Amino acid sequence: MSRPDLTQRVSEDLINGNIEGIKEALTNVHPSEIASILQNFDPDDHAKILEALDNETASEVILELDPEQREDILEDFDADKIADIADEMDSDDAADLLGELPEQTAKTVLDKMDPEEAKDVKPLLKYPEDTAGGIMQTELVKVSQNSTVQDTINWIRLIADEVEDFLMIFVTDEDDKLVGEISLSKLILASPSTQVTGIMEPVEVTVTPYVDQEEVAKIFQKYDVLSLPVIDGTGSLLGRITADDVLDVISEEASEDMLQMAGVGDSLHPLFTPTVSRIKLRTPWLLLTLIGELFIAFIIVTAFQPTLEKVAILAAFMPAIMATGGNVGLQTTTIIIRSLGMGTINVKQIFKIIVSELRVGLALGLICGSIAALIGALISYNQPEVFKLSLAVFIAMVSATLATSFIGVAAPLTLQKLNFDPAAASGPFLTMFNDIFGSVFYLLIAMLIF
Amino acid sequence: MSRPDLTQRVSEDLINGNIEGIKEALTNVHPSEIASILQNFDPDDHAKILEALDNETASEVILELDPEQREDILEDFDADKIADIADEMDSDDAADLLGELPEQTAKTVLDKMDPEEAKDVKPLLKYPEDTAGGIMQTELVKVSQNSTVQDTINWIRLIADEVEDFLMIFVTDEDDKLVGEISLSKLILASPSTQVTGIMEPVEVTVTPYVDQEEVAKIFQKYDVLSLPVIDGTGSLLGRITADDVLDVISEEASEDMLQMAGVGDSLHPLFTPTVSRIKLRTPWLLLTLIGELFIAFIIVTAFQPTLEKVAILAAFMPAIMATGGNVGLQTTTIIIRSLGMGTINVKQIFKIIVSELRVGLALGLICGSIAALIGALISYNQPEVFKLSLAVFIAMVSATLATSFIGVAAPLTLQKLNFDPAAASGPFLTMFNDIFGSVFYLLIAMLIF
Repeated sequence: MSRPDLTQRVSEDLINGNIEGIKEALTNVHPSEIASILQNFDPDDHAKILEALDNETASEVILELDPEQREDILEDFDADKIADIADEMDSDDAADLLGELPEQTAKTVLDKMDPEEAKDVKPLLKYPEDTAGGIMQTELVKVSQNSTVQDTINWIRLIADEVEDFLMIFVTDEDDKLVGEISLSKLILASPSTQVTGIMEPVEVTVTPYVDQEEVAKIFQKYDVLSLPVIDGTGSLLGRITADDVLDVISEEASEDMLQMAGVGDSLHPLFTPTVSRIKLRTPWLLLTLIGELFIAFIIVTAFQPTLEKVAILAAFMPAIMATGGNVGLQTTTIIIRSLGMGTINVKQIFKIIVSELRVGLALGLICGSIAALIGALISYNQPEVFKLSLAVFIAMVSATLATSFIGVAAPLTLQKLNFDPAAASGPFLTMFNDIFGSVFYLLIAMLIF
Repeated sequence: MSRPDLTQRVSEDLINGNIEGIKEALTNVHPSEIASILQNFDPDDHAKILEALDNETASEVILELDPEQREDILEDFDADKIADIADEMDSDDAADLLGELPEQTAKTVLDKMDPEEAKDVKPLLKYPEDTAGGIMQTELVKVSQNSTVQDTINWIRLIADEVEDFLMIFVTDEDDKLVGEISLSKLILASPSTQVTGIMEPVEVTVTPYVDQEEVAKIFQKYDVLSLPVIDGTGSLLGRITADDVLDVISEEASEDMLQMAGVGDSLHPLFTPTVSRIKLRTPWLLLTLIGELFIAFIIVTAFQPTLEKVAILAAFMPAIMATGGNVGLQTTTIIIRSLGMGTINVKQIFKIIVSELRVGLALGLICGSIAALIGALISYNQPEVFKLSLAVFIAMVSATLATSFIGVAAPLTLQKLNFDPAAASGPFLTMFNDIFGSVFYLLIAMLIF
């Protein structure tokens, strides 16, 4: 059945209170498809539709939803229902779910969960969500170094239900330290009596649980691995991270960079985040820039009013200078932030990069400045002192592009060096810096020239 | 040895022409680490260092490099050397490498490659780099539906050298159509005499080779798979894509969005992209905005000069109105573009989203407009008609935030609906639209008020 047809049918069943009908309609529909269908319904109906599904399907649908939407739905469920759903999840997902609940509810849910599942989830709760510990799973296949291939296969048979997808078998010594790993394809090809130590390979790379998830994503990309073991300080195996968990991390981190550059502060859903939260999260940056801009207004009023009164036409070119400088700065800072994000440059190269970007910025400034000066002269050909105006526009535009090129490199790299997020403060800083050059500096030059 | 020490040692060996020394120093160093070390050397030395490595290591290092850098190095290698290196790569990487070479060189290299490897690579060359066909590998494990588990294991043993990493065994019928897949863990647990049809599972999702890589990435994220089969129109298996290939795709696509929003056009490396290319790629957007801004200047000169001469102070608040409107628009458009990129909203919701963003935009405009009007009155308290000025600033700021909120949603969603990249044109469009509101519209209001 197509998505609109399914939506239609579920919505009729909802009106008629036909829970069985909903269940039947959504059988064999992929959970992520169900999540998409939910978007067509009123938020109040989401919980009702999910109630109709079996716990396993419901748990998968819930994982596909936006955090805001998930929160809404969980508010409508009691602790027993949430515990049943969490029982169906992998430990890392269950831990994230519990992390999103109010502390007291999370405790109650944990108590009501299957003790076996709860045991897997508990150790994960202490790690922040955006660290290796926060995205790892504790379900894994681990054998002692004294095992044979046959022992390993027997062990897998025993735990097959609990550990569904795995790519690697981890080998540990008597102190539970990770000493090697075996890929499943190697295991298949080995003879049953072989010792695992004979076919295991050294573990290329591991992480500790407090490593930032962005770092984890970089390791996956750098080493091209599909599975990464997480160990504690003594080398004991705590969990494993698989590439599919990291897909979401890379996506999230890139979003974070973009949103922070735009001063949004956090991931906002255009429909599901409440209006008040959206306003709160967007206001600080706007106010910061506004204050700076009003300070610029103050300087113009106190210092340049006579100049502006004499040559009112000067104001006409302020937008052009501000926009050009702003665009060059935005280009530069975006290139730098993405290069840092992708790991293709590092802070040690700061001087080389500044020189290189200033060269480009100068060229761009000369191109745009010449065009602006020329068109400026044409626009205001009938004004007195049109050439002085053009000269002021030219100098201001070249200075603005040079200045924003410099700050567009220096700001994110300095922040990175100081261990701040380079994307976090580049935006407002850049806008203000640029607008000073596009207005105050321009008027200063104009005042000197006229 | 630490990275600086290694760099030191390799650079001494280079000076002394001690190729064996370089090889020895870099033995057991991870290829991605060698790629990082290369960054410390002069581009002319890169090829020399790579020549010292065995072909397998060299091939892995080359894959870790920036495309610009890779191109430089390959120019220094002859076709035989490139063929040896390509022979060591997976088919998808080898195809990408050939795709980066000049056409004639690529042909020569293909002819010089191991015929077995070349056979895997050739079919991939016809798919664009950014499609499922462009990122898939042709090396895979495929068995007929008449096979038993033992047959499958025997077959894996036979091809183990060629197909290194695999997660799934694909099952095909007599017409070579994909009918199911078996995970390695299932294969291990099955008894040797079982028919593969007895343990195989239906394939949840497949793609055809011309599907865009961004779509492929979304499928991986939506279905949480680690491996995705690529089939042709008749259902025959062509290749497979693994999650590690998709990690890079997600990262690339997010970069593309960010860079396009900033009008950079393409991925630029701050150090390795030649200055001239960087200027060429950044100029079009700058010029587009500049022309728009100069048109604004023209309107101001022709229509508002008398107003500005009478009330020069008006110019002082242009930066504030432009910056606030611009920031609100940037926030909105970034949220929309990322939501589209993450697949959390769709174009059908356009009206709901516009209404929702306009509500937020109005609130932000009222907050910023009130503050600006108040501070504006304080700054210019000694000017005549200060309240008229404040009123103009307030109205212009609220209008600007409303307008940019609207365009910040409407522009990317309309582009998406017309099958353009939503990130591509939002930037310049937004800047110009905003600056018209921040200057022309503001001055128009001021003219009416005064």
